[in-house]
Amino acid sequence: MPSAYTRLTSRFQRLSRFGHLSAIAGWDMMTMMSPGGSRARGEALAELSVLQHQILTSPETAVDLVQAKQESLSDDEWVNLAEMERAWQQAVILPARLVEAKSVAGSRCENAWRSQRPANDWKGFAENLKEVVYLSRQEAEIRAQNAGVSRYDALLDIYEPGMTSCQLDTIFSDIKSWLPDLLQRVITHQSEQSIQQPQGPFTIENQRHLGLKAMETLGFDFDAGRLDVSAHPFCGGVPQDVRITTRYDQQNFLSALMGVIHETGHARYEQNLPTQWPGQPIALARSTAIHESQSLFFEMQLGRSPAFLARILPEVINHLGVQPALTQQNFIRLAQRVEPGLIRVNADEVSYPAHIILRYEIERALIESEIEVEDIPALWQEKMERLLGMDTTGNYRNGCMQDIHWTDGAFGYFPTYTLGAMYAAQLFQALGRTLPDVEQLIADGDLQPVFIWLQENIWHHGSRFSTRELITRASGEDLNPRWFRQHLESRYLAD
Amino acid sequence: MPSAYTRLTSRFQRLSRFGHLSAIAGWDMMTMMSPGGSRARGEALAELSVLQHQILTSPETAVDLVQAKQESLSDDEWVNLAEMERAWQQAVILPARLVEAKSVAGSRCENAWRSQRPANDWKGFAENLKEVVYLSRQEAEIRAQNAGVSRYDALLDIYEPGMTSCQLDTIFSDIKSWLPDLLQRVITHQSEQSIQQPQGPFTIENQRHLGLKAMETLGFDFDAGRLDVSAHPFCGGVPQDVRITTRYDQQNFLSALMGVIHETGHARYEQNLPTQWPGQPIALARSTAIHESQSLFFEMQLGRSPAFLARILPEVINHLGVQPALTQQNFIRLAQRVEPGLIRVNADEVSYPAHIILRYEIERALIESEIEVEDIPALWQEKMERLLGMDTTGNYRNGCMQDIHWTDGAFGYFPTYTLGAMYAAQLFQALGRTLPDVEQLIADGDLQPVFIWLQENIWHHGSRFSTRELITRASGEDLNPRWFRQHLESRYLAD
Ligand SMILES: [Zn+2]
Ligand SMILES: [Zn+2]
Repeated sequence: MPSAYTRLTSRFQRLSRFGHLSAIAGWDMMTMMSPGGSRARGEALAELSVLQHQILTSPETAVDLVQAKQESLSDDEWVNLAEMERAWQQAVILPARLVEAKSVAGSRCENAWRSQRPANDWKGFAENLKEVVYLSRQEAEIRAQNAGVSRYDALLDIYEPGMTSCQLDTIFSDIKSWLPDLLQRVITHQSEQSIQQPQGPFTIENQRHLGLKAMETLGFDFDAGRLDVSAHPFCGGVPQDVRITTRYDQQNFLSALMGVIHETGHARYEQNLPTQWPGQPIALARSTAIHESQSLFFEMQLGRSPAFLARILPEVINHLGVQPALTQQNFIRLAQRVEPGLIRVNADEVSYPAHIILRYEIERALIESEIEVEDIPALWQEKMERLLGMDTTGNYRNGCMQDIHWTDGAFGYFPTYTLGAMYAAQLFQALGRTLPDVEQLIADGDLQPVFIWLQENIWHHGSRFSTRELITRASGEDLNPRWFRQHLESRYLAD
Repeated sequence: MPSAYTRLTSRFQRLSRFGHLSAIAGWDMMTMMSPGGSRARGEALAELSVLQHQILTSPETAVDLVQAKQESLSDDEWVNLAEMERAWQQAVILPARLVEAKSVAGSRCENAWRSQRPANDWKGFAENLKEVVYLSRQEAEIRAQNAGVSRYDALLDIYEPGMTSCQLDTIFSDIKSWLPDLLQRVITHQSEQSIQQPQGPFTIENQRHLGLKAMETLGFDFDAGRLDVSAHPFCGGVPQDVRITTRYDQQNFLSALMGVIHETGHARYEQNLPTQWPGQPIALARSTAIHESQSLFFEMQLGRSPAFLARILPEVINHLGVQPALTQQNFIRLAQRVEPGLIRVNADEVSYPAHIILRYEIERALIESEIEVEDIPALWQEKMERLLGMDTTGNYRNGCMQDIHWTDGAFGYFPTYTLGAMYAAQLFQALGRTLPDVEQLIADGDLQPVFIWLQENIWHHGSRFSTRELITRASGEDLNPRWFRQHLESRYLAD
């Protein structure tokens, strides 16, 4: 008779195999599937998701979780058990009718949004969003009561275990105190530099080969993954078979190139997760913010650094041809251009946090019932004005209707983008203490020591440590926004 | 409380949704997956297959199947119930340990075969094959005892319900009586014609676009499917999202073009299966041979007919460029070339039945324990000599080791290829009685009446009728090899 712990590991391995099929079918839906297949695919994936929920929340799981605590377990097994319990708890706590209602309301809101956004139809969108908010508040309330925290913190914990709005408030008010001024100085500084735009078109085929070359340089394992195209870039698949995507703009090759570098960061984390606990929660990536820290480490810390840009420029020219804009100095200026805009996904790393803080403040107030859906546009306008000095009055399409996150109730997700940026800066700073010659290594194209450091400090730990412990072991301290500020100042104001 | 029949339909719809995920993940494995993903994919698919088996063979299914027979059902529901029972019976009858052992032995044999075949290592292969044969005999014995038929007939029934080796013997001995002579006459006849080979290379991109054009001409629904590349061409996916594949030979464009036309025949059957019984067995394709009859109807009856070849030639030239070999007369000769060879998958339609009869006779004797694995090479040699006049002594690689079917125990499958060819000829003949001007329609590119006839007579029936009933309703008689002979004689000896 296997122990309760062993029974749990079998059950989670089984769940992970079903998760594999769901990940591949999900990737296929975004990259390969013809539109006519969407209804049947939706039904198949929903059926699988019901099954996964049933396995996770079965009475046997509950009994085994209690019983396993009486068994003699190794340290790693305790950690794994705690992660199992966390997954179980998150699933078991919501009544089935709420899960179902949220899923239906989310799909309806998202489907309508696809046409409402281009039509700038805020009124129509708000109607559906109200239902999503109503149900998300219910979800948050149930989770909050169970965890003894605030509603918003309960949702935040889904994506970023251990993070609280109290900590976020401290961090974000720090950022708000210096960001608008820093942004102004960077813009003034850059306005004194001349910059030349590259002349497209750059064919998709050439851009694709350049992207593959960058992935190779960055150590992507092509035996365990691939690059494709989707409307919204993502990193999907499973650790043994990571599927990253990009989209190509024939006029702007930097967008796909930097996107590929970003997703390669996500991919290398997945490809290098620990293999000694197959299918177990302890072997998964730590959190959404730590995941984003790896992509932003690749894109922002490494990818847009002068040393890396200088190193990859010959490949760019090799694939896209010589042109006046592709001098080293101009190429670096292009990749480091700061230009506040309305759209979050197009934002540079200096203005990005403003987009996140704005969304965080609104979504938190929304979940805590301090504001209602009707209040969003005015708040959006006020905060955009204050943080980025931009006017979005009446421009819902490129204002509060631009993102997909709220349409299906993913409240609590936005802060992880900026947490990721701060973790990335802090990790790069810590790496620099271990490898003082890191810039030279990058310039020489000798990235192996960098990857080994990430592997030893982040990737191969999986979920072995809490985020706080992971980051403290790697960098000597808990999250400290100072390194992010220092990174921005030294990159954008030093010369 | 839903009726037993309703419970069964829900269960089969659920099975069909899991089948959807299995089909897409299987397609991905053959077309997209990097090699490093294969172990995890294999485990995920095996886990799903265990689940499907559990659902199908659950005690509830057995009880509901008995109970549903007491309920008042429509004619269609009775048919669907019978198909459900058939699927259940096929699955429930084998002990789990035999299914497991067959799967393990099959994988081992197939994996080793991948290197043993190029190495011409018959001895090594025979060792693994013995185990597969041993287990397949056990499977056949269990199925035979249950059905009260011979061992081989029990396996044949998996692929071709209702077909018997007695009927096959009659048909195949008829073919054997005229085929060698016909083949000789065709070869002599063609040796008097001059033929010019096209000069490659033909780029994959150009061949792909030509293939897509052919699919369009043949009514493939691109909103519900796509074309990709795999080592072995197949038609996969689900009816709402059919995935066909081909492979490209830069020197020989006809191979991919005719392959695409073949798979398009499979695809249109799938895309036009009835939709009023979602997820139910009655809505599935009738049988392996009927499926093959649709692909061969497209490839052989339609695709290699002079009228169709003349019609598609301008597109060929349009995509691949003008060249001397692409005159109408020479193009038809190329597509209708008869040349006996060692390899079944490369065979023309005149010599193809010889490859099948040879395999049928050997695999039947093997399953019935009349011969052993060691006897295969000598029998192969003797039959190749007699049927096609070719010598394969010592050439195991291109002899009895060329196919994948036996490696994982798919005994009983081979005959469906030639049954498909005969059904295709018989259906085309029947179509000609309804549409006497069919050749003119093809020449004019007006294929809609042909598709409507197939839709009404085959596609939209799904599994509503038995194969015999289906073919009798469509053509006025049961399978009659005469039409196939007449097709070959009129195509290859008439001019
Ligand atoms: Zn990211
Ligand atoms: Zn076929």
